[in-house]
Amino acid sequence: MQAEIIAVGTEILLGQITNTNSTHIAQGLAELGIDSYYQTVVGDNPARLATVIEIAAQRNDLVILSGGLGPTKDDLTKQTLAKYLNVPLVEDTAAMQVITDRFAQTHKTMTANNRLQALYPAGATPLTNHNGLAVGAFYQSPDSADFLLLPGPPREMTMMFDTEAKPQLQAAYGQQAQIYSRVLRFFGIGESQLVTELKTLIDDQQAVTIAPYAKTNEVTLRLSAQAATKAEATAALDTVEAQIKAKVGDYLYGYGDDNSLVAVVIKTMIDRQLSITGAESLTAGLFQSTIGGVPGVSAIFPGGFVTYANTAKHQLVNVPQATIDHDGVVSEATAIAMADGARQQLATDTALSFTGVAGPDALEGQPAGTVWIGLAYRDQPTEGRLYHFAGDRQRIRERSVMAGLDWLRRKLAAEAPIEK
Amino acid sequence: MQAEIIAVGTEILLGQITNTNSTHIAQGLAELGIDSYYQTVVGDNPARLATVIEIAAQRNDLVILSGGLGPTKDDLTKQTLAKYLNVPLVEDTAAMQVITDRFAQTHKTMTANNRLQALYPAGATPLTNHNGLAVGAFYQSPDSADFLLLPGPPREMTMMFDTEAKPQLQAAYGQQAQIYSRVLRFFGIGESQLVTELKTLIDDQQAVTIAPYAKTNEVTLRLSAQAATKAEATAALDTVEAQIKAKVGDYLYGYGDDNSLVAVVIKTMIDRQLSITGAESLTAGLFQSTIGGVPGVSAIFPGGFVTYANTAKHQLVNVPQATIDHDGVVSEATAIAMADGARQQLATDTALSFTGVAGPDALEGQPAGTVWIGLAYRDQPTEGRLYHFAGDRQRIRERSVMAGLDWLRRKLAAEAPIEK
Repeated sequence: MQAEIIAVGTEILLGQITNTNSTHIAQGLAELGIDSYYQTVVGDNPARLATVIEIAAQRNDLVILSGGLGPTKDDLTKQTLAKYLNVPLVEDTAAMQVITDRFAQTHKTMTANNRLQALYPAGATPLTNHNGLAVGAFYQSPDSADFLLLPGPPREMTMMFDTEAKPQLQAAYGQQAQIYSRVLRFFGIGESQLVTELKTLIDDQQAVTIAPYAKTNEVTLRLSAQAATKAEATAALDTVEAQIKAKVGDYLYGYGDDNSLVAVVIKTMIDRQLSITGAESLTAGLFQSTIGGVPGVSAIFPGGFVTYANTAKHQLVNVPQATIDHDGVVSEATAIAMADGARQQLATDTALSFTGVAGPDALEGQPAGTVWIGLAYRDQPTEGRLYHFAGDRQRIRERSVMAGLDWLRRKLAAEAPIEK
Repeated sequence: MQAEIIAVGTEILLGQITNTNSTHIAQGLAELGIDSYYQTVVGDNPARLATVIEIAAQRNDLVILSGGLGPTKDDLTKQTLAKYLNVPLVEDTAAMQVITDRFAQTHKTMTANNRLQALYPAGATPLTNHNGLAVGAFYQSPDSADFLLLPGPPREMTMMFDTEAKPQLQAAYGQQAQIYSRVLRFFGIGESQLVTELKTLIDDQQAVTIAPYAKTNEVTLRLSAQAATKAEATAALDTVEAQIKAKVGDYLYGYGDDNSLVAVVIKTMIDRQLSITGAESLTAGLFQSTIGGVPGVSAIFPGGFVTYANTAKHQLVNVPQATIDHDGVVSEATAIAMADGARQQLATDTALSFTGVAGPDALEGQPAGTVWIGLAYRDQPTEGRLYHFAGDRQRIRERSVMAGLDWLRRKLAAEAPIEK
């Protein structure tokens, strides 16, 4: 079983938008255990679209087309496919009713081209569009490849593919051996170092594939096992994960596509009822904004301080003017005084502070990327740590926040194991 | 002149990464005036790669391959191309020297496969990789399509394409009629409303194409004109821009791919020497972090407050307890008191405050997305404005910040025209 994804849209060929639709469909095919060896992009041109349909139908069992189902004169995908299949287009009554209702509701005149959106190739199963008007279709052919027609706008496409198309594909092509995946998330180790540490495992991979992926400020490993049952896959994944942990477990902070370092840290602090505040210079609120993104954080986060100017460091969190004069603002003493001052002001259990050089210019003779982080943690002595980050202004600020969160994670883990 | 982009990589076919390389190359081709009617993705498989090279060479004058130039056993692109062209691979001495030096420097043993990275098809012009070790190549053929070989990692590919390959393409294919683009940036109007307002212009577009694109929290219009000279293109773009401004000019805040609402606002405030602070509840530092991202902001931004809990609103920016008790925290009175209090604390010219319901849960009986923004602006009476935002927690917080910035932009524009 082998499928090709064809994205139809001149705006992709012009580089105006990135083809994320094919990524989403490819992930879905992998989950269904359907192989995919080719992807194609073609513009809104019926002659060229016809040739790519023909090539794809010859080399695949299933051809998935996204885009070109709308009401404009550029939208020609289903007309072209119907011509290739030599079948007429017929109307989906339910979809047509939705279109008619929509125009009645908004008191607008429905032009003839809007009817186009309710049409699909005769003999296909129409697929409902929950986020738009253009209907999709799944066409099973006895003597050529099968075809799946999906809309182009990502919101419409992903919803239709996930809820309507995937069950149809599953039913049509039976139980393929599925691919089960597990995502391991690492912070504090670069992709190349991770790959070097795991070289033997990656080179010898057999039942479980190990795919490293460098994301912004972190690295993930996607472990994938093709197996007939979930239990079989889980056992294989567990074995490889244990081997990975033995080598780089110290950097592993969590699991899953939707997880993040901040979510793991804040969830742990909420569970342990540890409150937190921050005093931020170069990060200018990015740390507090990051923890503010986690639902439920209000239970442990009263607020905090952005102390960009020296006057604000002194006025808002009581950094002694003598410390600034003697040690400078980019210093261990200032970082510790900021964390202590913020914690004292709001009477929290912990506080993080950030002071350093975001760039592009140097400060106090120190280059961009020089950052001191302060951590006041419960009854332990407040500490400062020096970091050197590379990258532009935004990158340096993001890395500062991540480094602070990782320090906090390690403090929390030292007291009791963290649920990842 | 017609080119096809082929991305080589199994991880794209599995949906593990999105094919941003093709987007970048497509943009470059559009700028060079080279048409592109097809894009293809194929895995790290020499037989299938050979077939897509053959199809692409038949239907194009130039075939651009990215990916598969590295040292691992999966990297087979240049070997496959050399076989198709029936030429040997030869060594780029300069690239080989870089590889040897790198290994000497890191005291590591160079394995034989690393030499592969310095090879290119005989007869091609090698292209330097400024961000990695694998050399690229531009092969001009008298009797088949030409080929451009680029590495797969986006940092390496974009650098090589922009600095090494584009000048070669320009020189090889002479002065094509180029496409000149201009990006107009809008805030406060949705994509569908923008398209509706501009329907006649978009339907009648001829010399200048108008491509709307919805980004996070804003919409851009890319105007593109194909012309022989820059002056000719500029005149055509100016005409259409004037027509667009006549309809939706009120929402236009700036120009360019790399611009942003915050950059326009902060640049204007720096120019006018107007200082600013913030008091943030639901946004939890996101506003201050956003302005903190603009280089030079320290001249006008001393710092500010995150007042998440009621106690912090009272303690840090002097919101009277009576106001909170009587009006609630999500109220005009609290928003105004927060802005006034923050401005007073740090003696700035302006202050923005944000208080509202980020969700997912309601607060004080008000649903997620209910937000009051306060603006203390110079000697004008401090005002509060009520907004209702849709979306998840992060979206609501982002939209709040953008709405505050837009309000500030309009205040600044009312005093004197803003340079966009």
